[in-house]
Amino acid sequence: MNTLGVALVGHAFMGAVHSQAWRTVGRVFDLPARPERVVLCGRRKDAAASAAARLGWRECSDDWKSVLMRDDVHIVDICTPGDSHAEIAVGALEAGKHVLCEKPLANSVAEAEAMAEAADRARRNGILAMVGFNYRRVPALALARSLVQQGRLGEIRQVRAHYLQDWLVDPQAPLSWRLRAERAGSGALGDLGAHIVDLAQHLVGDEIVAVSGSVETFVGERPLPDEPARRGRVTVDDAALFTARFREGALGTFEATRYATGNKNGLRIEVNGSRGSLAFDFESMNELAFYDGTDPADVAGYRRILATEPQHPYLEAWYPPGHVLGYEHTFVHELRDFITAVADRSTPSPDFAAGLHVQRVLDAVQRSAAQHSRWTPVLQGER
Amino acid sequence: MNTLGVALVGHAFMGAVHSQAWRTVGRVFDLPARPERVVLCGRRKDAAASAAARLGWRECSDDWKSVLMRDDVHIVDICTPGDSHAEIAVGALEAGKHVLCEKPLANSVAEAEAMAEAADRARRNGILAMVGFNYRRVPALALARSLVQQGRLGEIRQVRAHYLQDWLVDPQAPLSWRLRAERAGSGALGDLGAHIVDLAQHLVGDEIVAVSGSVETFVGERPLPDEPARRGRVTVDDAALFTARFREGALGTFEATRYATGNKNGLRIEVNGSRGSLAFDFESMNELAFYDGTDPADVAGYRRILATEPQHPYLEAWYPPGHVLGYEHTFVHELRDFITAVADRSTPSPDFAAGLHVQRVLDAVQRSAAQHSRWTPVLQGER
Amino acid sequence: MNTLGVALVGHAFMGAVHSQAWRTVGRVFDLPARPERVVLCGRRKDAAASAAARLGWRECSDDWKSVLMRDDVHIVDICTPGDSHAEIAVGALEAGKHVLCEKPLANSVAEAEAMAEAADRARRNGILAMVGFNYRRVPALALARSLVQQGRLGEIRQVRAHYLQDWLVDPQAPLSWRLRAERAGSGALGDLGAHIVDLAQHLVGDEIVAVSGSVETFVGERPLPDEPARRGRVTVDDAALFTARFREGALGTFEATRYATGNKNGLRIEVNGSRGSLAFDFESMNELAFYDGTDPADVAGYRRILATEPQHPYLEAWYPPGHVLGYEHTFVHELRDFITAVADRSTPSPDFAAGLHVQRVLDAVQRSAAQHSRWTPVLQGER
Amino acid sequence: MNTLGVALVGHAFMGAVHSQAWRTVGRVFDLPARPERVVLCGRRKDAAASAAARLGWRECSDDWKSVLMRDDVHIVDICTPGDSHAEIAVGALEAGKHVLCEKPLANSVAEAEAMAEAADRARRNGILAMVGFNYRRVPALALARSLVQQGRLGEIRQVRAHYLQDWLVDPQAPLSWRLRAERAGSGALGDLGAHIVDLAQHLVGDEIVAVSGSVETFVGERPLPDEPARRGRVTVDDAALFTARFREGALGTFEATRYATGNKNGLRIEVNGSRGSLAFDFESMNELAFYDGTDPADVAGYRRILATEPQHPYLEAWYPPGHVLGYEHTFVHELRDFITAVADRSTPSPDFAAGLHVQRVLDAVQRSAAQHSRWTPVLQGER
Repeated sequence: MNTLGVALVGHAFMGAVHSQAWRTVGRVFDLPARPERVVLCGRRKDAAASAAARLGWRECSDDWKSVLMRDDVHIVDICTPGDSHAEIAVGALEAGKHVLCEKPLANSVAEAEAMAEAADRARRNGILAMVGFNYRRVPALALARSLVQQGRLGEIRQVRAHYLQDWLVDPQAPLSWRLRAERAGSGALGDLGAHIVDLAQHLVGDEIVAVSGSVETFVGERPLPDEPARRGRVTVDDAALFTARFREGALGTFEATRYATGNKNGLRIEVNGSRGSLAFDFESMNELAFYDGTDPADVAGYRRILATEPQHPYLEAWYPPGHVLGYEHTFVHELRDFITAVADRSTPSPDFAAGLHVQRVLDAVQRSAAQHSRWTPVLQGER
Repeated sequence: MNTLGVALVGHAFMGAVHSQAWRTVGRVFDLPARPERVVLCGRRKDAAASAAARLGWRECSDDWKSVLMRDDVHIVDICTPGDSHAEIAVGALEAGKHVLCEKPLANSVAEAEAMAEAADRARRNGILAMVGFNYRRVPALALARSLVQQGRLGEIRQVRAHYLQDWLVDPQAPLSWRLRAERAGSGALGDLGAHIVDLAQHLVGDEIVAVSGSVETFVGERPLPDEPARRGRVTVDDAALFTARFREGALGTFEATRYATGNKNGLRIEVNGSRGSLAFDFESMNELAFYDGTDPADVAGYRRILATEPQHPYLEAWYPPGHVLGYEHTFVHELRDFITAVADRSTPSPDFAAGLHVQRVLDAVQRSAAQHSRWTPVLQGER
Repeated sequence: MNTLGVALVGHAFMGAVHSQAWRTVGRVFDLPARPERVVLCGRRKDAAASAAARLGWRECSDDWKSVLMRDDVHIVDICTPGDSHAEIAVGALEAGKHVLCEKPLANSVAEAEAMAEAADRARRNGILAMVGFNYRRVPALALARSLVQQGRLGEIRQVRAHYLQDWLVDPQAPLSWRLRAERAGSGALGDLGAHIVDLAQHLVGDEIVAVSGSVETFVGERPLPDEPARRGRVTVDDAALFTARFREGALGTFEATRYATGNKNGLRIEVNGSRGSLAFDFESMNELAFYDGTDPADVAGYRRILATEPQHPYLEAWYPPGHVLGYEHTFVHELRDFITAVADRSTPSPDFAAGLHVQRVLDAVQRSAAQHSRWTPVLQGER
Repeated sequence: MNTLGVALVGHAFMGAVHSQAWRTVGRVFDLPARPERVVLCGRRKDAAASAAARLGWRECSDDWKSVLMRDDVHIVDICTPGDSHAEIAVGALEAGKHVLCEKPLANSVAEAEAMAEAADRARRNGILAMVGFNYRRVPALALARSLVQQGRLGEIRQVRAHYLQDWLVDPQAPLSWRLRAERAGSGALGDLGAHIVDLAQHLVGDEIVAVSGSVETFVGERPLPDEPARRGRVTVDDAALFTARFREGALGTFEATRYATGNKNGLRIEVNGSRGSLAFDFESMNELAFYDGTDPADVAGYRRILATEPQHPYLEAWYPPGHVLGYEHTFVHELRDFITAVADRSTPSPDFAAGLHVQRVLDAVQRSAAQHSRWTPVLQGER
């Protein structure tokens, strides 16, 4: 069996989660190739070294560019903030490395376009690129997509997608990099909105073509992280709300917020079709609610499907029914699918083109917001 | 259309609820006869008079015996504490009045036997008697019974029936009549246990033949209601737990308690069969959870059926889907069924024989408890 | 005690529900005046006569105008479709009758303005007018309002209000009067959206000042009710989505739809404040979820409050804890509050000015929708 | 930092789960010693070899006895069926190895006694032994225990503990080793009942002193796994029901079953105290419901605590709030606590004495069942 050497860039929250997934995936799934955790890259050598020891990487580096030159590295996994995605991803693809890049793909449409073009070019040489929209790999949501594809919801009419967190409710919470546009690109919109845009399009099996959106910053200034007595300006949105039209006519409502007191990671999505409906909340991630409108009226009702049966996506490799999975398993599934795609030389999903489309939707939301929420096409040419 | 004159005995909580149902039933359902609220009986004339005015009864009386002699009274509805049920019910039946008697049928098996015999005799003259186990008339539970009868649960294996309240948690709660054996017969066992025994038998469509039970009084003395400085002895159970076998082999576990802090009227019942399961909690009384084991594994799950569709029992007369019903509507349904039975001269369900059987089950629980929870047959001859 | 003679106009669904409430309110609550069900008005005499008999009204009439002249009528309760509200209400107020008018107040802002003006004039003569936004009287929602008013949510940041039904999912459902603009004014927007606009403003204690909205008709033609072989055009919206700003800065998202398969009467509302949050779903109308952000982090969580305690609004008159209420009880509460206001000569809530404001919000949604969802002020002068 | 060499015996379901936990624990938690996965033992060399490769163990062996002689092995982790626990555990302890043994401790009280004695002797030499009741390490349940210990529930009155599975509902399911008394000891009682007995005692902080129990085998014969045309006798229980008394007076009801259609891993437990209540269901393992009876009545309600805050047990090492954990994480927590105890030479919890007590409770259930469910003391001397 082939070995795939992996370099991971970034070792904060996302880097740690990816590391756990890289350590686990080959122990649980039958893979077509064996991933090896070759090198962990960080900005500072000492921090990278201690992270590599802790997270189980053979080597460490503070120079991702040189890592791209290594023959024993086949995959570059990018877990840095969004402002460095484009440079690293394009560099890696040009160096002939497969790339897995955390979401959102980039901080701007221009960067995302460059990345998608690089991915296109690389694709011709058998080099693959994938965006890390991990929620697609929640088994309950993979099941949801499959039910839509089987036609069990009929024609899709409406989608309701909310991503509710509450970690900014306190006006004294510090001005982290996530609240500065130059690092994070946007606020709730890019961090949370990107997930629900991708997920909604994935579940419905259709693309958003236009949006009407609003963004809001509730607290304009916050204490600086290193100097709490001083305050700096918040340059991203706290909440983003938008309505969207899909190509085939479905209507979607979207909300991403960090001010929904009491909601910790409330990624909630509902899909209503002419024959049935689905509902999901990540806080109960092992459950999918499914309403089958073809059931006789006296026994119709939302079914709480506990998506832990061997018949459910990804579950054949795990535990007996009812022995539930958690957040981190979505990354294990993502890696399984990515490694499989790399081994097969098949296009992974979502690819960078999909990531670019999400970026364009987010951009259209910002453009709409700047124009009094006027309906705005996602592709400017379509205006 | 015939008129049925009604006399109601008792005007406390149950009397008020029945009054609301008598006022409503003919306004909502198409009935074969028209009930008239002729007379309300109480122990004290003045209280009965003001209750009659408030609750909408034409006359009042402090002498239920004389009321039994009236030609314009056809139905006697008994809403008094259990210690007077036997005398009133037997008297009414012997006077040729149809009887609706609140549960539990009586405070002892002997009384219940006398009542069932009187009902038998009356039945031969076309006079009917029914026990007021109102929870059978929750639409979601009527649907539950229908699903079991249709075979959608297959062979019934297990029943779990809990009736959880918490109004005695405070050790300073007063020693009301419900805590004295001479008035109430028993405590949680007769008050709450009677409901779940009836309901479980009704849903399963089978009879309990033996029990192993325990009863417990957590707080032995309480303040007297009228003299809080003095304390009196609690002579009934606070909680009763029992395991039961049904004739056809199903196993049931039952719990009735007034000490389940945080549970207000938690009548919960689950039925597990070889092909499916049901679950219900009265605190969400419009919902029935139904698991259809014949669904494909990937889409099987407990369905939350909102039992408010026109196809559901009793709902044809009420509101559009989702416009939920409440506790009091179960009594309206009970009256509809009772009036229909009276008009048809068909045996109402549950009749006094069913009420007697419940009483025998409760008695067997007490006998078992007195014998270290030894399994005890419900019918002593079957021991 | 004074008697208040009532005339009810309309005896379809709403008329029946109001009748049940008129029959019940004085039996349950201590009222300052005694309502009498004097006369039921309908368009056809025979239908009105049979409805009056069934629903318990002393007389019937097919001429509401003459009823306004009667001295024994003090209250006119309007349960007709929206297109006749203005004429009846203005007539009644001018005739010196107190008016309870079902929502939405009218089919247009112009009508609503005329009604609010008539109400203003009548108010000076001690004649009162109220709009029937019954959901304010759900005990759990009355509690919700009280918690916001006590400051337990802090500063309100966001509101999420959905009213989800599914009775139009079937494209063969007939073209009822509710789907024709000339009768109904609008579709989901006026029927469902009016409720959530009123409720959100009521809970937040603030007014919506601007909206960005979209409306959608998914199925453009439907069979005529009386001639199913022919189809007519649907002239109202099937779904309405809008974002709203409140005067004090809160953001709201609203959705009213008749296409949310599996949702029967899913009036759901969430309010997020700086100190806490609330969540409610009418399908479980006895429950309020309350998150208290001041709880210590280890025990903070949404509380499921079963709003059936004697401490909860309206509950002192009803049943013991856990003996849940239903849809119809909200009307009983509405009548209690209306009768109390009439007896006190105090302004009932919501008055016609509040109803007019709701109407203006709905109108602004339609104007915004006609302008590519551009943000639109509710008061045109504020533009 | 010290290294602790680990030998794992058994590589089926439990062995795989433990392996994942051994691989993970040091990557996530700061440990006082470094565990090394030295050797995996199985009955057959080839199977052990491939399991070792897959699960990440350096070596494999088909001779656990010789492994006990190795100096580089400090911990023996026993994941075999119950009939071999005693021999391996006693052997390992006598060889000076720390032991982690899967539950139930043994198949009989006699074996468990021998193990507890061996653990006592080893304890004097600083050698430690722990039983693998992993559910104690669900963060929500560790929080539950802490709330009880803080007195937030007051005096404990009642416990309701159910462990509901459904994998035997099909009468054609094969006669696996779990259905044969000689391998498994008992059926649902030992497999599922052991968990809820340990958990209930752990949460309440008290011991069960007497039980009244019943056991039931619904399907008496099943197809042989290797020869489906032939049937063999099921020699264990399918369901076990029992009532229990705790030393301090609390009452518990317990049910373990493999016939609860639709329940996959429904470990549900409720605790009612004089000041509050708790409720938990493993199928939603990240949630704890807590009712605080000292809350004002108008805002009292079961709180859904999402036990993913940094303030919650074990969570400081994991992900941000709302990024939920799964079944396998309970084993990571178990290993952290075990390694910590080993490094500190402190007694791990639950130790073998606790495991023995659970065994005695299960044995008392069987003895009670054999005596018509008569109340039976757990310690025979106390009879």
